Amino acid sequence: MVSEYSLTVKREAAVRSTRERIVDAAAQVMRTQGLARATTKEIARTAGCSEALLYKHFRAKEDLFLAVLQERLPGDLPRLLATLAGEAGRNTVAGNLERVAHAAIIFYDESFPIAASIFSELRLLDGYRTAMRERSAGPQTVNLGLAAYLRAEQALGRVRPDADPEAVAALLLGACLQHAFLSHFTEVEAAGAAAGRLARNLAAGL
Amino acid sequence: MVSEYSLTVKREAAVRSTRERIVDAAAQVMRTQGLARATTKEIARTAGCSEALLYKHFRAKEDLFLAVLQERLPGDLPRLLATLAGEAGRNTVAGNLERVAHAAIIFYDESFPIAASIFSELRLLDGYRTAMRERSAGPQTVNLGLAAYLRAEQALGRVRPDADPEAVAALLLGACLQHAFLSHFTEVEAAGAAAGRLARNLAAGL
Repeated sequence: MVSEYSLTVKREAAVRSTRERIVDAAAQVMRTQGLARATTKEIARTAGCSEALLYKHFRAKEDLFLAVLQERLPGDLPRLLATLAGEAGRNTVAGNLERVAHAAIIFYDESFPIAASIFSELRLLDGYRTAMRERSAGPQTVNLGLAAYLRAEQALGRVRPDADPEAVAALLLGACLQHAFLSHFTEVEAAGAAAGRLARNLAAGL
Repeated sequence: MVSEYSLTVKREAAVRSTRERIVDAAAQVMRTQGLARATTKEIARTAGCSEALLYKHFRAKEDLFLAVLQERLPGDLPRLLATLAGEAGRNTVAGNLERVAHAAIIFYDESFPIAASIFSELRLLDGYRTAMRERSAGPQTVNLGLAAYLRAEQALGRVRPDADPEAVAALLLGACLQHAFLSHFTEVEAAGAAAGRLARNLAAGL
């Protein structure tokens, strides 16, 4: 009984570690070679496993792509947005928007080259769009999280009742996306300084 | 004298039309096949001319890429931004921001797949970055144009003196960029309606 239990624990640890190794390899290949070249064959080779083993953990390349975006990008944007609405009323609204903007700039900075590369092959784009829809995932979920926080602040009277949460979320997170985009073409302000300027100017109208 | 003049006019018209045909072909190939596949060979084939003739009109593929972005995208964003600072004081600031947002959403909508596809090949990205710098071009010029308009309105007292023109420009144009990005993944509001919401919410703080 004990040994069977111990065997199961060991097996689960091994399964987990293979999965983590594959996600690490996918992140590395996507970053260094672009998504168009990140084939499951290349990812499996980098992970030191077979393609068959890769497909035991991820039924499609799209799932692996989503795992990288959700689990391997630095910063705490997903966690922050998931909890922020519950923290409405704490700190200042401008300060909370600044935290979101800072995390979003870092998130977009890392994910932009990966996400944008799917536009290189129009057939790839169709596949990802469908895959994202099926999984209720996709880049729009970030705006929804910030809009939910703003609505919670409106309910507390800390944001003007006629402010439009979706539009305000789009202004802030759009500017963060653009910051990441522009950083590939020109000198841009550091993430922290940019986040402060964007949040202050947006909060002035709230 | 007359016949020489007439010959020159005809020659110029022919040169212009070859150039236009090449830009048309480049726009078509970039849109339908992505930038990575838009080789000068393929563009020349589509234009019905030789690669040598293409290189008579454009010294590098990057110049052709810039010509497409500047001359073949619908909407009037470049013209609008070039003239807007001179029109400060006319109409309402919110209305002017709405016009910019509307034009920007249409511009980004068309240019996003083309521009983003350069991220598919990290080596391509380096080349474009250098080419854009040499030509003082690049996606940041759009923000600079809008910031110049906001500064002109500040000078007229129609925008708060403590508003930050660059940050406000980034908020509006970033949201327009994100709108174009999200439209490839999910249902988005029509350009006109989105532009109005974004401009109203941003202008509330100005």
